[in-house]
Amino acid sequence: MTDQLERLNRLPLRTNLRGLRPYGAPQLDVPILLNVNENTHGVPADVRAAITEAVSAAAMGLNRYPDREFTELREGLAEYLGHGLDANNVWAANGSNEVLQQILQAFGGPGRTALGFPPTYSMYPLLAAGTDTAYIAGARADDFGLSADSAARQVRELQPSVVFLCSPNNPTGTGLGLDVVEAVYAAGEASQTIVIVDEAYHEFSHDGTPSALTLLPGRERLIVSRTMSKAFALAGARLGYMAAAPEVTDALRLVRLPYHLSAVTQATALAALRHREALMADVEDIKRQRDRIVAELQRMGLKPAASDSNYVFFGGLENPHQVWQGLLEAGVLIRDVGIPGHLRVTAGTETETTAFLAALEHILTSQATLPA
Amino acid sequence: MTDQLERLNRLPLRTNLRGLRPYGAPQLDVPILLNVNENTHGVPADVRAAITEAVSAAAMGLNRYPDREFTELREGLAEYLGHGLDANNVWAANGSNEVLQQILQAFGGPGRTALGFPPTYSMYPLLAAGTDTAYIAGARADDFGLSADSAARQVRELQPSVVFLCSPNNPTGTGLGLDVVEAVYAAGEASQTIVIVDEAYHEFSHDGTPSALTLLPGRERLIVSRTMSKAFALAGARLGYMAAAPEVTDALRLVRLPYHLSAVTQATALAALRHREALMADVEDIKRQRDRIVAELQRMGLKPAASDSNYVFFGGLENPHQVWQGLLEAGVLIRDVGIPGHLRVTAGTETETTAFLAALEHILTSQATLPA
Repeated sequence: MTDQLERLNRLPLRTNLRGLRPYGAPQLDVPILLNVNENTHGVPADVRAAITEAVSAAAMGLNRYPDREFTELREGLAEYLGHGLDANNVWAANGSNEVLQQILQAFGGPGRTALGFPPTYSMYPLLAAGTDTAYIAGARADDFGLSADSAARQVRELQPSVVFLCSPNNPTGTGLGLDVVEAVYAAGEASQTIVIVDEAYHEFSHDGTPSALTLLPGRERLIVSRTMSKAFALAGARLGYMAAAPEVTDALRLVRLPYHLSAVTQATALAALRHREALMADVEDIKRQRDRIVAELQRMGLKPAASDSNYVFFGGLENPHQVWQGLLEAGVLIRDVGIPGHLRVTAGTETETTAFLAALEHILTSQATLPA
Repeated sequence: MTDQLERLNRLPLRTNLRGLRPYGAPQLDVPILLNVNENTHGVPADVRAAITEAVSAAAMGLNRYPDREFTELREGLAEYLGHGLDANNVWAANGSNEVLQQILQAFGGPGRTALGFPPTYSMYPLLAAGTDTAYIAGARADDFGLSADSAARQVRELQPSVVFLCSPNNPTGTGLGLDVVEAVYAAGEASQTIVIVDEAYHEFSHDGTPSALTLLPGRERLIVSRTMSKAFALAGARLGYMAAAPEVTDALRLVRLPYHLSAVTQATALAALRHREALMADVEDIKRQRDRIVAELQRMGLKPAASDSNYVFFGGLENPHQVWQGLLEAGVLIRDVGIPGHLRVTAGTETETTAFLAALEHILTSQATLPA
């Protein structure tokens, strides 16, 4: 490995890549995987059957390039989103990472800046680096909250080309009020800032939580990004998308690789959209398990953040790495997101969630009774 | 549309994108499609069945992120390529466009240059622009040939960070001798130039044509790119790949989006690799149709270029657009690549090829007998 690293360093790699390591959570073989916020409830049988049928039909024409405009899929996504959106408002790519990369290619780049508010989705700075956009880490309150006043002030001061608002935020799981989005959008008027609201986990929000989609009319610099990786249980199929004014989709057409979305991906995503009833029922159960985790962690004396997502971020741990390791030994993989005193856990099935809670309580009890 | 363009221009689009139009050949609904060098022979029935079965199995786990390292697919591609390569030499992405984009992200970028030799694959300058790499158009001989001396001299003078050698070249269809690759590689020693040999159409080369894969040992700046879009009849599945020294794949790991290759794409590509017998038989028939087109065009008094690909570039036309239009009216879509006096046609099935040749001869005869 060292030899290979040395050989890599002899290649004419770009300066800003030297010494970096590839991004990615560890992929370990553990019975209960609650580490990367996947949909733990799996792909329902009728969705699997629909996917198989759709791909079988698509296979007939795979020798041809796919529909470059993936019109049927954009129509399906617009219909799913509602809010009066149509295919002209919608764009998709191989995972929301690629959607965000395309937005940065269109509106970021050399000499421009992107603002995020850590702790937040760890890909934002990497996507910025990959498009030579300078990344600015904005400030949050001590409790990781972000008020409309604070966010708007930072946008006015920093005048970024692009701002990322993650709601619910990853890794904290907490949603952002629409007042924050409105304030940030207004504050970006002078700098013509593109405002991205990353709603990857929106479907897991508590009932009645409004989406930033409601703010789209009249706001041509606002983009709401979504994904089929979470609520639609399709992390493996890589389908991210966004809704915005039609001119934003036109801008992304200028930077997308032609035929970037395969006919197989289009068929898979459409099949899931058309058979979403069982998926949406699973979302309701995931929300129940999430609320159960929050309640149980509180009972154990920990400090879980309010969560509108399919995971729970919790503090109050004296030695989070030791707890993480103990859970791993019990066959439960969760995520150490590198924030002192905190860990993050994905809501599992009822059985997985029970196993996680039992293992955690056992670890905490054992630690408490250890000799000092 | 003009309104929408005006609205697009009010967005804070990057300066180098202003006024551009999205890339893409026209997608017209015509009975015989010989315009974008697709595999006209379709996906064989056993390959379709294998794809369906593989995707059905993959659907079980689609709620999980895919294997970020797509190890099984890299092993399959290495086995297919042969030449002593293994999975560490191989990398893949959503179409060879994405592979080339990743190479430019790793080795090109702001302040760096990429050299191509037009007429050549029209995506090279667009990929360069998308990664802020300055594109330099090198020179070819009047007959579109490129000698080792000429190419090497241009590399020594221009010292590009990356050079694209397309072999067989698109749109001319002619292969490049390995002496050109060797000379360009040697000439790039001082500038540490990354040399990409784009062999998207290599499988259609005449028997005995060596691949640049034979040159990989000892050349860590050499990259050979391939695709499953052509010989494997999978343009719709988007699977491009490359072979190079292991440290090159390490470099691409630094710029790839995590999980860029979906589980569905991985399953589809693997199924085709494992059932390639019928596909390779189709390749042989496509080569026969290609050779037939060359012979027939010569007989008609036209000037087809020697072709090692699944298409034929031909000159000797007084009014190529009129011929293109006449063929379209006869239900045959071919490609006007914008080179005076020339057109390009993809080799069809035997029936399609016969229809193209008959329509073309009819048009040429009618033109010749028109009153002056």
